[in-house]
Amino acid sequence: MSKLVAEVIQANEQYVENFGDKGGLALPPARHFAVLTCMDARLDPAKFAGLAEGDAHVIRNAGGRASDDAIRSLVISYKLLGTKEWFVIHHTDCGMELFTNEIMGNLLASSLDTATFDGKWKDIGTTPGSNEGKEIDFLTISNLADSVVEDVAKVRNHPLVPPSIPVYGYIYDVKTGRLIEVEEATKVGTVK
Amino acid sequence: MSKLVAEVIQANEQYVENFGDKGGLALPPARHFAVLTCMDARLDPAKFAGLAEGDAHVIRNAGGRASDDAIRSLVISYKLLGTKEWFVIHHTDCGMELFTNEIMGNLLASSLDTATFDGKWKDIGTTPGSNEGKEIDFLTISNLADSVVEDVAKVRNHPLVPPSIPVYGYIYDVKTGRLIEVEEATKVGTVK
Repeated sequence: MSKLVAEVIQANEQYVENFGDKGGLALPPARHFAVLTCMDARLDPAKFAGLAEGDAHVIRNAGGRASDDAIRSLVISYKLLGTKEWFVIHHTDCGMELFTNEIMGNLLASSLDTATFDGKWKDIGTTPGSNEGKEIDFLTISNLADSVVEDVAKVRNHPLVPPSIPVYGYIYDVKTGRLIEVEEATKVGTVK
Repeated sequence: MSKLVAEVIQANEQYVENFGDKGGLALPPARHFAVLTCMDARLDPAKFAGLAEGDAHVIRNAGGRASDDAIRSLVISYKLLGTKEWFVIHHTDCGMELFTNEIMGNLLASSLDTATFDGKWKDIGTTPGSNEGKEIDFLTISNLADSVVEDVAKVRNHPLVPPSIPVYGYIYDVKTGRLIEVEEATKVGTVK
């Protein structure tokens, strides 16, 4: 068992000891909403949005992008489990602003090891690379507010998303912890 | 502003007030790992695995499945941001065990409203449905341990995933809060 696994299991033991009556929580989210946000380590949606266990679906990927997979998850969220309002939350200082598909494709072709960044990406890895990365759209971000507007619109206009679900667009500021509304996105996204 | 949005913003204000020095956290995960798990409302990975803000990437979708989008996120996680160990965590009583692609396709074709479940899905919605759902693979689960083994193997065997990254397979028990190793998955997944 790695040191990390031991730490995670130990933390989990403590959680189990203090689990209380959470074993009785129902499957459908009690507060009937879902959050789509970034996988970024600095973001804790439960903490920054005030979620207890059982409250809301939380969908996370690189960038908090409205990928086909995020939309698959959102459709399951309302159609089978009754969520009624959705948040799309990107954040400042996002790693997705630091590269392009071309940069990533070339880095993965160079090696499969972790690259370094000092204003520019460099790859001195030795594990042989792969050209497979050149076939992937990494859903990078060039402008943060634009990416929120784009993703809210993509969700909003999806043929499987009912017009009754409001979709709110926000940016999370990693320097302050504050949620800032992207008014243009919420306007695009909310059915009045 | 909806009642829900007001609640979220109020909770966020409190988080901001107690944000402390978290504005200084670095972008790359401090503990160099990533967790892929389900969007289920009852799961709080930060709590059940002992994560502080800044520690680890958290990727979540319906089922915690190793979708192409989850793999996109994991590849970004190690290649650009240096994670070195990954967990794939599914959970007991998952909604993904309660339907099939066929059931979901038919429910979405019937209406875009939320269906009801009493051992069997029923749809009495009035918002016109769409056949688009019949084109989607919803990545449902028929056996929980099998789905963990399958997803660990899918991540493990992906051409963009370096052999140096261990991939651990676990099931989270929603009745107790406990993480249970799927030994077969971790064996498949870990490069010795």
